[in-house]
Amino acid sequence: MEELRRRILEAGRVESDLVIVDSFLNHRTDPALMSNVGEWLAERLGDFDLVLTAEASGIPAAFSTARAAGVDFIYAKKQNRQLDPDLHFIRQVSSPTKGGKTWITIRKELLGVGRDIVVVDDFLSRGRTAEALGEMIEESGNRLAGFGFVIEKTFTGGRSLLEKHGWKIESAAIIESIESGRIAIA
Amino acid sequence: MEELRRRILEAGRVESDLVIVDSFLNHRTDPALMSNVGEWLAERLGDFDLVLTAEASGIPAAFSTARAAGVDFIYAKKQNRQLDPDLHFIRQVSSPTKGGKTWITIRKELLGVGRDIVVVDDFLSRGRTAEALGEMIEESGNRLAGFGFVIEKTFTGGRSLLEKHGWKIESAAIIESIESGRIAIA
Repeated sequence: MEELRRRILEAGRVESDLVIVDSFLNHRTDPALMSNVGEWLAERLGDFDLVLTAEASGIPAAFSTARAAGVDFIYAKKQNRQLDPDLHFIRQVSSPTKGGKTWITIRKELLGVGRDIVVVDDFLSRGRTAEALGEMIEESGNRLAGFGFVIEKTFTGGRSLLEKHGWKIESAAIIESIESGRIAIA
Repeated sequence: MEELRRRILEAGRVESDLVIVDSFLNHRTDPALMSNVGEWLAERLGDFDLVLTAEASGIPAAFSTARAAGVDFIYAKKQNRQLDPDLHFIRQVSSPTKGGKTWITIRKELLGVGRDIVVVDDFLSRGRTAEALGEMIEESGNRLAGFGFVIEKTFTGGRSLLEKHGWKIESAAIIESIESGRIAIA
């Protein structure tokens, strides 16, 4: 994923502890680059039946990974109100970028049971959304087959949070530090 | 787009005047179907430099259309607060599915100037979001080269709202009526 690393270093902007890559990933998106990332993640994650992500910024990576593997993807919806828990899997998470709390929901019927599902997202940072998606898969009677991220930040605790569950993680690019506004990539 | 019409009739659910296609389009998504829709829309829309949509449900169609044309796409963000108008194009719209008002925003620097831009979205219904995106393109000093929709409902006023501006519209599937819970496709 040399091209992805190059793009992060060229176009990434640092705002406090956030890396903003909105010129090719999560506001303006380069579909050719994302297709390459999706192929890379699909190969690393092995066999799976479905991809799960959360709206909105996870959708391009989930689309690309699912397309490469020939399977569907689901994007969990973010709601400002709680839906019927008989019909939906629901978790409450806080958003570090937008602020406030939100409910992430998946309509149960769409997820099915007994499948191997991977979670794909644009960023692994604190890992709260990823953990919630992983728990929803396990609650649903499906198997969590791993996590794939476009960019992982190693210094914000996300990997250790997910590894406590025994979950497998693949990241196409790894940011090891941000010091004085400079991004260091593994 | 015979396959798309068949999927709408097989899997679409009617809830009052809404057609819910969340099993293959806008909650669970079939990337192979969406790639076909994107190729169809890209061919119909002709030459363009960039695709614009709004998060989150427009992203799969925008991704596919942009990928087919070899260009980037931008998804306008939905915010619950107003951003700095010096840095962002901003419109306030109401959401018929989620309720309430929201600000849709595009960071100005990402849009550039002097390009041919198409707007792509999952549904043309009342057309308010599409109109807002079209106005933002014209405000930005770019040219609006047309609209592409996965599904158009002809009985909710969206087409006439956009045609008042003289804008061109392509839709991969057209729903002409919903009567007694039955969907009729053109």
